[in-house]
Amino acid sequence: MINSTANKQVRRVANLVKKARARREEGLYVVEGLRMCRELSPEQVEILYLSESFLKEEEHRRMTEGFTWEAVADPVMKVMADTQTPQGILALVRRRDWTLEEILGRPGTPLLMVLETVQDPGNLGTILRAGEGAGITGLIMNEGTADIYNPKVIRSTMGSIYRVPFTYVEDLPGACRQIKEKGIRLFAAHLKGSGEYDLQDYTGPCGFLIGNEAKGLTEEAADQADACIRIPMAGQVESLNAAVAASVLMFETARQRRRQ
Amino acid sequence: MINSTANKQVRRVANLVKKARARREEGLYVVEGLRMCRELSPEQVEILYLSESFLKEEEHRRMTEGFTWEAVADPVMKVMADTQTPQGILALVRRRDWTLEEILGRPGTPLLMVLETVQDPGNLGTILRAGEGAGITGLIMNEGTADIYNPKVIRSTMGSIYRVPFTYVEDLPGACRQIKEKGIRLFAAHLKGSGEYDLQDYTGPCGFLIGNEAKGLTEEAADQADACIRIPMAGQVESLNAAVAASVLMFETARQRRRQ
Repeated sequence: MINSTANKQVRRVANLVKKARARREEGLYVVEGLRMCRELSPEQVEILYLSESFLKEEEHRRMTEGFTWEAVADPVMKVMADTQTPQGILALVRRRDWTLEEILGRPGTPLLMVLETVQDPGNLGTILRAGEGAGITGLIMNEGTADIYNPKVIRSTMGSIYRVPFTYVEDLPGACRQIKEKGIRLFAAHLKGSGEYDLQDYTGPCGFLIGNEAKGLTEEAADQADACIRIPMAGQVESLNAAVAASVLMFETARQRRRQ
Repeated sequence: MINSTANKQVRRVANLVKKARARREEGLYVVEGLRMCRELSPEQVEILYLSESFLKEEEHRRMTEGFTWEAVADPVMKVMADTQTPQGILALVRRRDWTLEEILGRPGTPLLMVLETVQDPGNLGTILRAGEGAGITGLIMNEGTADIYNPKVIRSTMGSIYRVPFTYVEDLPGACRQIKEKGIRLFAAHLKGSGEYDLQDYTGPCGFLIGNEAKGLTEEAADQADACIRIPMAGQVESLNAAVAASVLMFETARQRRRQ
């Protein structure tokens, strides 16, 4: 059992929690909590850490079967974890990055979300979770978008991080061109969009471009779209939260595909 | 100018920022930042506090016209404010609570959001902001719902807090009965709902019941609904974020009303 916060592994985990760079270099990310850890298989996990008090329950001890694991003293878990009151279970999980080609080659009618510099981890996680629910086939992000392996993102995905294919691309306009070459129509969510979003047909292969929370899409990215669309708004609201706008578009697509 | 953090006003403001009870007792709440303060009129505001460095700009000094205001040293503003890097402007604003009767008596086709114990301030603020955009006519909350005057809620409303009528009710099922007596159809968003949400007609007077993030609606509240609806979901998603679910329903209503 790890009793000391000076233990090398403690520093390593705390680093993986805090630093995107450490996560990239080690090819690992940190998953916390019973609910999120329960979905993991031994192949995905390098090591599980469980707190002493967590291990007291028989049901919790059974969760270690097949996994490499280590017990840690409760105060040590507090230092490792990102949350203020850790549940007592934490996993180092191997990253699974997809390529754009893999995402574009998936079966079924494509429904892609393309994010440009969406910076709020909560928004990114919410888009991934709602996206799985709406049936998206992939998430494509530029490098200015929040790190999907950030613990805040992981938490707000409620497990969708394991199931929705995603990738980061260096050249977003280039990726958009590759997407369009596959016959996928790209729609840009844009405040100046001329078309009301619900007058478009999303039953065919399509994708949505969503921009930064404060600045929206860059012209360079918006130029790649086949059409600019907007969500009509009442009152004096200037824009919607990025996750809300994305969700309205994704569920309108799901609705149309169900009703076609 | 207030130079000392020991000044009585500093403690008062910090209290109003932190404590729902202080806000209730004083009938005031705190609004921070240029964008949110710019929308305020002198009648709404008890006092404006502006930091020394904020006041250096001519355009900022002009914002004080007609207002009771006070300059504060920059370190003092840091103690008053809720944000880590305050913009330098903060207002004590008089609360404007509506009654349920006032909300139900508003002109236009009612579109109500009824929240039961929605606890995350970010979710509440996002629902208010998206709600204004979707054209809701009022927000009704039970007392277990987050305090709408919490600074985190205020920030995430982006100003909708000034424009959307809202009220807290002690007896939510009782309020639901009052709503239904006005001929407003109530729909409960429920994971066990039998009807797909987009097969209902929302063009007439209607409202949506949204439950707690983890537990959903209580049976007592769900029983008040005319119909239980659900948002069909792909993948292994068990539920949507409360603000996302609310937004999908509100914008489906706006869509139907535009197309009717």
